[in-house]
Amino acid sequence: MTETSFRRLRYAMVGGGRDAFIGAVHRKAIALDGQAELVAGALSSSPEKAKASGRDLFLADDRNHGDWRGLLDDELKRPAHERIDFVSIVTPNHMHFPVALAFVEAGFHVVCDKPLVHTRAQADALVDAVARMGTVFGVTYNYTGYPMVRQARDMVRSGVLGEIRKIVVEYNQGWLATRLEGEGNKQAAWRSDPAQSGAAGAIGDIGSHAENLVATVTGLEIESLCADLNSFVPGRPLDDDGSLLLRFKGGARGVLIASQINTGLENDLRLRISGAQGTLEWRQERPSELTHLPHDGPKRILTRGAPWLCESARRASRLPSGHPEGFIEAFANLYGGVIADIRAKLAGTAADPLAADYPRVEDGARGVRFIERTVASATSEAKWTAW
Amino acid sequence: MTETSFRRLRYAMVGGGRDAFIGAVHRKAIALDGQAELVAGALSSSPEKAKASGRDLFLADDRNHGDWRGLLDDELKRPAHERIDFVSIVTPNHMHFPVALAFVEAGFHVVCDKPLVHTRAQADALVDAVARMGTVFGVTYNYTGYPMVRQARDMVRSGVLGEIRKIVVEYNQGWLATRLEGEGNKQAAWRSDPAQSGAAGAIGDIGSHAENLVATVTGLEIESLCADLNSFVPGRPLDDDGSLLLRFKGGARGVLIASQINTGLENDLRLRISGAQGTLEWRQERPSELTHLPHDGPKRILTRGAPWLCESARRASRLPSGHPEGFIEAFANLYGGVIADIRAKLAGTAADPLAADYPRVEDGARGVRFIERTVASATSEAKWTAW
Amino acid sequence: MTETSFRRLRYAMVGGGRDAFIGAVHRKAIALDGQAELVAGALSSSPEKAKASGRDLFLADDRNHGDWRGLLDDELKRPAHERIDFVSIVTPNHMHFPVALAFVEAGFHVVCDKPLVHTRAQADALVDAVARMGTVFGVTYNYTGYPMVRQARDMVRSGVLGEIRKIVVEYNQGWLATRLEGEGNKQAAWRSDPAQSGAAGAIGDIGSHAENLVATVTGLEIESLCADLNSFVPGRPLDDDGSLLLRFKGGARGVLIASQINTGLENDLRLRISGAQGTLEWRQERPSELTHLPHDGPKRILTRGAPWLCESARRASRLPSGHPEGFIEAFANLYGGVIADIRAKLAGTAADPLAADYPRVEDGARGVRFIERTVASATSEAKWTAW
Amino acid sequence: MTETSFRRLRYAMVGGGRDAFIGAVHRKAIALDGQAELVAGALSSSPEKAKASGRDLFLADDRNHGDWRGLLDDELKRPAHERIDFVSIVTPNHMHFPVALAFVEAGFHVVCDKPLVHTRAQADALVDAVARMGTVFGVTYNYTGYPMVRQARDMVRSGVLGEIRKIVVEYNQGWLATRLEGEGNKQAAWRSDPAQSGAAGAIGDIGSHAENLVATVTGLEIESLCADLNSFVPGRPLDDDGSLLLRFKGGARGVLIASQINTGLENDLRLRISGAQGTLEWRQERPSELTHLPHDGPKRILTRGAPWLCESARRASRLPSGHPEGFIEAFANLYGGVIADIRAKLAGTAADPLAADYPRVEDGARGVRFIERTVASATSEAKWTAW
Repeated sequence: MTETSFRRLRYAMVGGGRDAFIGAVHRKAIALDGQAELVAGALSSSPEKAKASGRDLFLADDRNHGDWRGLLDDELKRPAHERIDFVSIVTPNHMHFPVALAFVEAGFHVVCDKPLVHTRAQADALVDAVARMGTVFGVTYNYTGYPMVRQARDMVRSGVLGEIRKIVVEYNQGWLATRLEGEGNKQAAWRSDPAQSGAAGAIGDIGSHAENLVATVTGLEIESLCADLNSFVPGRPLDDDGSLLLRFKGGARGVLIASQINTGLENDLRLRISGAQGTLEWRQERPSELTHLPHDGPKRILTRGAPWLCESARRASRLPSGHPEGFIEAFANLYGGVIADIRAKLAGTAADPLAADYPRVEDGARGVRFIERTVASATSEAKWTAW
Repeated sequence: MTETSFRRLRYAMVGGGRDAFIGAVHRKAIALDGQAELVAGALSSSPEKAKASGRDLFLADDRNHGDWRGLLDDELKRPAHERIDFVSIVTPNHMHFPVALAFVEAGFHVVCDKPLVHTRAQADALVDAVARMGTVFGVTYNYTGYPMVRQARDMVRSGVLGEIRKIVVEYNQGWLATRLEGEGNKQAAWRSDPAQSGAAGAIGDIGSHAENLVATVTGLEIESLCADLNSFVPGRPLDDDGSLLLRFKGGARGVLIASQINTGLENDLRLRISGAQGTLEWRQERPSELTHLPHDGPKRILTRGAPWLCESARRASRLPSGHPEGFIEAFANLYGGVIADIRAKLAGTAADPLAADYPRVEDGARGVRFIERTVASATSEAKWTAW
Repeated sequence: MTETSFRRLRYAMVGGGRDAFIGAVHRKAIALDGQAELVAGALSSSPEKAKASGRDLFLADDRNHGDWRGLLDDELKRPAHERIDFVSIVTPNHMHFPVALAFVEAGFHVVCDKPLVHTRAQADALVDAVARMGTVFGVTYNYTGYPMVRQARDMVRSGVLGEIRKIVVEYNQGWLATRLEGEGNKQAAWRSDPAQSGAAGAIGDIGSHAENLVATVTGLEIESLCADLNSFVPGRPLDDDGSLLLRFKGGARGVLIASQINTGLENDLRLRISGAQGTLEWRQERPSELTHLPHDGPKRILTRGAPWLCESARRASRLPSGHPEGFIEAFANLYGGVIADIRAKLAGTAADPLAADYPRVEDGARGVRFIERTVASATSEAKWTAW
Repeated sequence: MTETSFRRLRYAMVGGGRDAFIGAVHRKAIALDGQAELVAGALSSSPEKAKASGRDLFLADDRNHGDWRGLLDDELKRPAHERIDFVSIVTPNHMHFPVALAFVEAGFHVVCDKPLVHTRAQADALVDAVARMGTVFGVTYNYTGYPMVRQARDMVRSGVLGEIRKIVVEYNQGWLATRLEGEGNKQAAWRSDPAQSGAAGAIGDIGSHAENLVATVTGLEIESLCADLNSFVPGRPLDDDGSLLLRFKGGARGVLIASQINTGLENDLRLRISGAQGTLEWRQERPSELTHLPHDGPKRILTRGAPWLCESARRASRLPSGHPEGFIEAFANLYGGVIADIRAKLAGTAADPLAADYPRVEDGARGVRFIERTVASATSEAKWTAW
């Protein structure tokens, strides 16, 4: 083993400065396990805010940049023992593509928030670049980092439920039930601006998580879909609510609901998968429970931390059962996978698949296609829009 | 007041003999409040089973009939002080129409199980007959008898949620996940036989409850719908699973799911209604709780029996809060409404609307239309099928 | 088989008139299964109210009595084919003893509400009379009628939990948190009056249910106890709150809490039993669920109506799983047991123990002892008061 | 403001090496907010394990010590800009006293795990030293770091519940239901060894958390208590289960249960507080919910992250509602308080009370008294043992 396991990795962040939400989550998630440290950044599109944000985070002045190109240039000039091992991109959506592509082309490993990019062409370009450069590229579909999602994946894929028949996935929030974007809320503003958010609102922001959750747990591919997208809040140019009927290859059927106007609901991502032999239910707001309803026996509640879980779920857990883990731990599990993959590359070895368990650029590209197909269906008079 | 309030009403039952399920529920529901007693019956399509069933229920021999026409003929010959006040029809679906029509045409009040009849033409004929004869006609969409459904209705209609935007209603069961109809299960057999059940399986059997629940609580009318119906169990001629996108007049959107192949789920009817000001959630399996999520305050759990509920909910309750009431009480509330209406007719007075609160023949007719439109959509290539 | 199975049993009720609570529950519970009918009564200590109440219930005038002695005298004069098969006593506590003793001594079967009587001497006298007369005597510790309590009993007694170590039983209500008895509330008034209620308030009214629940499920006997009884509401002469430490023969330890000043709690009876191999949890407010936590596997939720429950639990159920049953059904299960026992006596056969499953006079007597020992401990300076 | 807010604080850890549990939790909690970094340690009582553990954590060799005295000596020799700002003590209980006293006497700020020390004399000595030296001293009663515990404290203390009457606190675990200490489990071994754990087992390990939770939320003082302590697992010298009746000054009454033999239960700390106007319920396993049951209105579920919470609860939250936070965040909140207090001392200013919100050495001392009084009561024949 090389020296790489005896040091923390170094990372930079693009976006995530003052007023941002998700950047701090990424940083806390990375800090949790002490395997990487923030050494550089371009933390805002506003140079002043970027610098001030970097000082908040104790960045050295010469690594605290006013824009991402400055960061990239500077890193390329630094010696290997100072240079970052990866960059974390947590900007609004429209910046994902140029930043990610530039860092990948420069040979850096990347973690990028979702949805990956705006268009399928961008997604394809990014997939190609990652393949060409051989870099690690993680997409933070963070909900798949929960241990009990991994347990669900293991149970579905090992056939515990039998043939999958019906999938219902919902992602309900209420925070955009009023026109927050008109009241100076930065989070609401960029999400409801097509130039920054892309062709979709709720479907892109949270529907893509729902799509990824289904794909991750079941491995099933969507064959066709039928979407109804709505914009309930007057003056909002993008959807704030959507419902889809789904048909999967192989015969399973599904429903996907994503809504940000469900007043009073907080972050209600939930999944129900029924197979011929049983059903699984999981809810993000009680992430440490997975309910298994066998067709021929009592309901079982599996909880995080139990010794009878699959190895993938057990590894994704830091505390004994009953000691609540949450959102940041799930995030940290994705970063743990990325870091394991980077360490393997640094060491010139193959990564342990159980360790390097995180959504890849291809998952991000599939999510972009999901958004595009959903928007196409929403404006079509045909019942089914092919994938 | 006439003498009618000083006596129990008399009723007959058609169907509901040995091996039946729902007939006993009707009888227990009626018995609960002691306002009516079973005096006659034609309890099965098999004359021998009908007679044996009547003896189980302590029917007098001369009022224990082998077929429903014999019952009707006999009742018409009896003097007023012996004659039944109403008949309860709890046969498989295909018998609802001839029996109900005959009793209505003969001037009897009727309670009939759902779905009302097989076709819109039959439904129209029945609505006409009831209007012409002026009889009381209740349809046992029993889930609307729960006190907290009535509370939800009151809150939605009085504007607590603001303008309604999104409705998600699900009715999930797992008991038909295997081919029970091939194993001698009578309940499964008639439900999956088009001749007895009609054009739909799960959508008719339980989807119609979901439709009625939405209509009752919100008063909204469906404008168009988009249905995907499936039959997962090999050899089953009717749907055992369905999902619909709904568009309501006035702009609300919805999803309706009805499935009988959700392994491990029991009787999971649930409703979520989001308006601009708040959301309501209700689940049949915890019927005494209604969750209200205001947009601007903490979640509230309203429970049956509390003094701050609306009068309609308070009247529908027999026990103090915390003393569980259930399915039979909800059923009994519908019968309570029918009986109040019959007593008013006997007394020649107008019924108290809060007392005579039950689904009418028109609700049954709307349910038939829902089934028909859903089946039409399921075979259409157009996205939206108009109501 | 004699003719007795071909007729409904006849019963009378003492107490339970207008303004009463529990009498109506008894009547509804009996009506539910149609195996017995109310034919006579002395429904209140006020003759006028008794008569008016009887008319509400459609009693014949000559069987509608102004006092219980009149009822008893009249029944003794009637021919066997008219005479009641049993009497149901639902008066305030202080009347249980004279009424029950008189009917037993006259050879009638009796169902009596709890707590049975005021003193151990009365309890002994009643136990003796029942033994001497050979009558059926049921005590309506209704919570043991729930199917999942019977399932818990079966699991504990068949060793699923291993050796029992710790028992925590709570019965929390909030309705007496203010001085309702000073505001004309009849239920509150007699419960807080020592002359009508006996030596204890909350401990007698609801603590006795908790004691019975533990005894029924576990079969364990209390060896000694340590009680702290309190009266929080000024001017209330009896306890409205109590907590006990319990030591059971054989080494198990326990805690019993009974309180009627737990503001906002409704009827929160709950039981947790831990053995060396697992734990069971049950809550009256969700009576159809029994949670089993094995030491070495995932939590299991057993639900009413499932085919894998014990026969005793299955028999105590009327509806499929997921169709909520409640308080009245549990009550009806006790009456079902009493009626099965009476039918067996009428037929001169031995009752099926699985059918004749109900709390006996001895259970009532043990409950009286529990109250007496608790009150003794509450005024003792010794830590442990022997049973 | 001094430069101190522009740098991370430096800390050392004593204990918490390989095989330990809670040390890693402390480190993750501190890392979460990026306000302090681990620069030195003596991570095990075994010098080799200590060194190996330090290397795992990327400690510099010259600050990676084989024993705590070496660490202390070294720190005292270092210049201010290298020296630690505080030490975190996460050893088994018996080492808390000597280590904490030595660091306090040397003028270092300290965070120490609970229970604080073995005896009241030790506790008094530590309280004196802290007062004399003016150092910051935090005790990681971590459950008080949950936002909804702070919300409960605010509601109770501001009178929302009215006069407090009844308190029920339970802390149930099942992991010590078998003799794990005989199977090489290090966590079980030291906890059941009186030399390392002190005079109590479960009551010290988890009962002390329950005591602290009640004291923190209510501010009430125990007047007298009555304890039953048990050791169910053969061969275990300390209690693994205990139940107490509590009497508080001012008239409130309570029950405290702490058990580690509740098979199947995970980390079930729960609190219920009833006052004259309402009840609060909180469960550690669902830490982001606080249930408020007003006497005169529907149940309310308050959730972490809502804008209507008190400022103390709002400040203790890092993510929007619905994004689960857990155990580590609660821990981090205590460290946040300690760090705020240290920063204020470094700056020579008074700490913001809302920021410097953490359990102090006096809370630890009161916990030691609680254990001592409980053990005294358990062996007493008197009902009540005075505080």
